[in-house]
Amino acid sequence: MSALKVEAEIYNFGGRLLKLSHESLVNNCSMGVNLYLPKQYYEGKTKIPVLFYLAGLTCTPANGSEKAFFQPYADKYGFAVVFPDTSPRGVKIEGDDETWSFGTGAGFYVDAVQEKWKKNYNMYSYILKELPTLLKTKYTQLDFDNKSITGHSMGGYGAIMFFLRNPNEFKSCSAFAPILNPSKTNWGIKCFGGYLGESESDKKLWEKYDPAEIISSNSYKGPVVPILIHQGVNDPFYKVKGDYDYLTPNEFLEKIKGSNYEKDVTLKFVDGFDHSYFFISSFSGEHAAHHAKYLGLLD
Amino acid sequence: MSALKVEAEIYNFGGRLLKLSHESLVNNCSMGVNLYLPKQYYEGKTKIPVLFYLAGLTCTPANGSEKAFFQPYADKYGFAVVFPDTSPRGVKIEGDDETWSFGTGAGFYVDAVQEKWKKNYNMYSYILKELPTLLKTKYTQLDFDNKSITGHSMGGYGAIMFFLRNPNEFKSCSAFAPILNPSKTNWGIKCFGGYLGESESDKKLWEKYDPAEIISSNSYKGPVVPILIHQGVNDPFYKVKGDYDYLTPNEFLEKIKGSNYEKDVTLKFVDGFDHSYFFISSFSGEHAAHHAKYLGLLD
Repeated sequence: MSALKVEAEIYNFGGRLLKLSHESLVNNCSMGVNLYLPKQYYEGKTKIPVLFYLAGLTCTPANGSEKAFFQPYADKYGFAVVFPDTSPRGVKIEGDDETWSFGTGAGFYVDAVQEKWKKNYNMYSYILKELPTLLKTKYTQLDFDNKSITGHSMGGYGAIMFFLRNPNEFKSCSAFAPILNPSKTNWGIKCFGGYLGESESDKKLWEKYDPAEIISSNSYKGPVVPILIHQGVNDPFYKVKGDYDYLTPNEFLEKIKGSNYEKDVTLKFVDGFDHSYFFISSFSGEHAAHHAKYLGLLD
Repeated sequence: MSALKVEAEIYNFGGRLLKLSHESLVNNCSMGVNLYLPKQYYEGKTKIPVLFYLAGLTCTPANGSEKAFFQPYADKYGFAVVFPDTSPRGVKIEGDDETWSFGTGAGFYVDAVQEKWKKNYNMYSYILKELPTLLKTKYTQLDFDNKSITGHSMGGYGAIMFFLRNPNEFKSCSAFAPILNPSKTNWGIKCFGGYLGESESDKKLWEKYDPAEIISSNSYKGPVVPILIHQGVNDPFYKVKGDYDYLTPNEFLEKIKGSNYEKDVTLKFVDGFDHSYFFISSFSGEHAAHHAKYLGLLD
């Protein structure tokens, strides 16, 4: 596995934000990732827990690093934050730059099976396996056995999907305006269809990535750890009375009725808030406290 | 005077960020400005103090709003924040877009006297008079008689310059990596020269805008209120051993020796930090506390 290269090391609050790059063997391209190491890291602490922040459509590692504002809380509680990219970049597949909601910036955290995409679009394996393995080799003070996951929009879907599909992997999960039932939304249909295929048998694979479908399946026996979700009522992608709801929180709540999770999803509808990073930064402190609890960082 | 138009109203923390536009009579163009109204505003409080944040070269009202992170502290202490633009835009003067350090995005907070620029480049009068007058007419819960000022780089210079030139106008002042002796720097020489002129008599006017010159002049009798300044030691524009120092903090410290201000400038050199918004957001909490004290917001 190729080494991580430190492109920039930026002092930020009590720690440092590292802009890293590396060759990805699962995506077959160079990838960028940002890593915030909290003040405890520089004080020499070991076994520092890790929070993954998965960004939404179009985003790079920069958006969350600059605007989600997890860093002061990372210092407060003592966890590192990983800000991965949202897709491979620069791989030049025909059609990868036609729209902001498919291809570049829109990897949708799946492993593609369609011939055209499967060489490069493997964000599921990238986030779950390749990236943590790579990071823990270099940053040995971090404890990748004690990690949690959060995300926004497409990344909120990703966070919940990773959490539910891999019950022993993450200690806790939260999301900001996630796409909760992606198989039923324009964004999900486009990305699942493109990367996984559109036939009826292909759609069986969609279900394995869809948080609402995973939870509502009879086979789901994951541990019940509360999932914290915020959804802005003025979010333009949440239109309960509009033509289409891209985020589908209510469809999700309906689907989980009767599941282990019925009482363990805290989905807070917050009046007035939109879909922007102004919304995310307003609640990142509350999400950080949620994760700190399950990462064992609260007294 | 033309009215302010609310282009967007964004929920953020406990308050709202307003994106405003208006016709400027002093700059003869349409201007944008952002205003953060803290939670106390929506609780009906009146006499809310105001902090002006002046941004650096190239910035719009967006940069500080998205990345300086004053909003949670505005809620904590109970002050509003004004994020003005850094120049007129769209006025189409020949040469206004040739470089990022002169013209558009680089108004340098002066009132131009050179024929080519004087119709539009009057950021001094805009920030000091037109903008507060306009805002207080519409937002009557804000107290523009109880205001402070801060800024970054060119805006840090601006903050200190406004504070020193107008002793009764602002309760307190702070700055992040300000250009402290602009007459002696590339940026200052270019902007002062372009807007104010380059003759020896023109240069008398430069002195009225230069914080180091104002303080060190024998005539300065302003009140002594401590100015809080942070300067990152790894800031690429602060090169004590390099060819040129764009920010000139040490020149400033030298100049103020023997002045009223000698003991009242707290200039903190902070190891490792650069010139970015990662630096600003790391210290905005400390600056907010400084202003809260002089705005009478601490118990």
